[in-house]
Amino acid sequence: MRELGEFALIDRINAGRVQARGVLLGPGDDAALVAAPDGRFVVTTDMLVQDRHFRLDWSSPEDIGRKAIAQNAADVVAMGAVPTAFVVALGCPADTPLEVVDGLADGMWAEAVRVGGSIAGGDLVRSRDLVISVTAFGDLRGGAPITRAGARVGDTVAVAGRLGWSAAGLAALTAGMTAVDLAEALAAHRIPRPPYAAVLDVLHGAADVDAQAEVGSSERHPDNTERTCSPAAGLHALTDVSDGLLADVGHVAAASGVAIDLDSAALRDRALEQIAARLDADVAQWILTGGEDHAFVGVWAPGCVPPAGWVTIGRVVAGRGVTVDGVVHAGDGGWESFHGADSPF
Amino acid sequence: MRELGEFALIDRINAGRVQARGVLLGPGDDAALVAAPDGRFVVTTDMLVQDRHFRLDWSSPEDIGRKAIAQNAADVVAMGAVPTAFVVALGCPADTPLEVVDGLADGMWAEAVRVGGSIAGGDLVRSRDLVISVTAFGDLRGGAPITRAGARVGDTVAVAGRLGWSAAGLAALTAGMTAVDLAEALAAHRIPRPPYAAVLDVLHGAADVDAQAEVGSSERHPDNTERTCSPAAGLHALTDVSDGLLADVGHVAAASGVAIDLDSAALRDRALEQIAARLDADVAQWILTGGEDHAFVGVWAPGCVPPAGWVTIGRVVAGRGVTVDGVVHAGDGGWESFHGADSPF
Repeated sequence: MRELGEFALIDRINAGRVQARGVLLGPGDDAALVAAPDGRFVVTTDMLVQDRHFRLDWSSPEDIGRKAIAQNAADVVAMGAVPTAFVVALGCPADTPLEVVDGLADGMWAEAVRVGGSIAGGDLVRSRDLVISVTAFGDLRGGAPITRAGARVGDTVAVAGRLGWSAAGLAALTAGMTAVDLAEALAAHRIPRPPYAAVLDVLHGAADVDAQAEVGSSERHPDNTERTCSPAAGLHALTDVSDGLLADVGHVAAASGVAIDLDSAALRDRALEQIAARLDADVAQWILTGGEDHAFVGVWAPGCVPPAGWVTIGRVVAGRGVTVDGVVHAGDGGWESFHGADSPF
Repeated sequence: MRELGEFALIDRINAGRVQARGVLLGPGDDAALVAAPDGRFVVTTDMLVQDRHFRLDWSSPEDIGRKAIAQNAADVVAMGAVPTAFVVALGCPADTPLEVVDGLADGMWAEAVRVGGSIAGGDLVRSRDLVISVTAFGDLRGGAPITRAGARVGDTVAVAGRLGWSAAGLAALTAGMTAVDLAEALAAHRIPRPPYAAVLDVLHGAADVDAQAEVGSSERHPDNTERTCSPAAGLHALTDVSDGLLADVGHVAAASGVAIDLDSAALRDRALEQIAARLDADVAQWILTGGEDHAFVGVWAPGCVPPAGWVTIGRVVAGRGVTVDGVVHAGDGGWESFHGADSPF
């Protein structure tokens, strides 16, 4: 990498890539230009640091690249927006093999294209550890952002995607166990698969979504008015599970000024229980506090049975905080940078 | 910092900040939402790594924060866009003093506000070295982006802002010299002051800029048609000097498929010559290859005398590459990551 130099390496990374339609100017100038058709854009940024957020002996460069894009794309989708583009700042030690940089770039591009976007630009610098900083953009297509603040008492809490599988994979890797029956957990840790479509189909899917909603489910609302459910309008609050279910549901509860009670029976996962037994681990801890699966947690209006792909896991009640079966969970609440001493830093 | 934890620290950084008008949703959710009034946004990203791009014993945290924002804002302005917002991913060792984080945040906010923007969101993670990754956004206000590719034979090359002063400050710090007569160079290194207004006033300044242009300068164009100069339309190409004048002018020449000849007499700087004499340094090397002052280089139509704040330094000619007084400059061409062995990495 030292031999090639920054500019040649950037050319190499960008060679043969096809930009998404919304990228009006890609790499090669002082800045890129990206379309924002409705006059706004959603933006989020995440930094991944070697040996803290990933390990080169546990994940391939492609896996790490995919994960870096996926976790940012999940944040974009968690606002109700369609991912459009990404920019990436990459810090690399000078002795980084070219295959590592190529692999990272290929993984990032693969995931960016998977969500309908592309990598519109970036920066490449020398650093002591590998550091990947991704910024992601999304298009709300004229809709309102789905924040964490819209949950109301009486709403239903549902999840799309898996919980605890990335934590299980991490536990297996930490224990040095990579047997075939752990492959699914290992894969979940290496490449998160956020169920983007579970959100985007509801909000932006078919042009006739609103028409279909007119004949959707309805039920008696607590305030005794009849409500008809439009799936898009019925999604009151949304987030992705990146810090752990309790922590992220806690963010929704705090932002909305409500409490959320989770139903442990709805959270059970027999396959994950088997893996936990193999590793002598606490499956509840994985499910409740494991981040990085990037499942989506949606809070739905009472008249809405959450649509296909969503599983009801709890309800919004008056109060503050998060409970499981009505009880505050004992134990670590989830991932938070700087807390804890189980790190080399 | 370890005691406070990520979420409390983010709250602390954001406390009391006032978002710019264009930031529709600021920190606190999965992503921010920023206005893009003309349906597009300019975006650029730069990563700064401790002991490679800055040193905590040479610059205050406030200085480093300002610099991180300024160099990104300069890239936005170098496209012809007005800065609107920034997002920042920050990697910090767990033992980073709170004063350092506070100072970085204060410096970033000060510069963001100075250019009319704000910091719409970010990420905070643990890392071995301090790493600052800034992504900046800008609004072209309906105008075309001013790329590096628009220079044409016969155009005039001009610069707004200083060249070589940041390099002089770096040389002084490297030599351990911080005497009073070096203060201006030291300040130039610590806090770049890109002359944003020299670009933005021309492109977006007064509502009657176009009307004024009608009575602007005119001269006979090489193709013998009479041309009237509109300063905005006359700015054919634009970049900022971040890698060094020769390198960045070289990018313009390459992108435009032309050659650029610089006039060494126009580049002379008596004050800088005195500092170079004090430090026994090569002033030409500072001016031609020193980056980080974030001056702007504009390429102007032949009918345009560059406006106030711009100094003519050369002309666009047929061919390839960059010359000074018609001769290719011997020596190092400017800053490039990974090349060179004068680094601890």
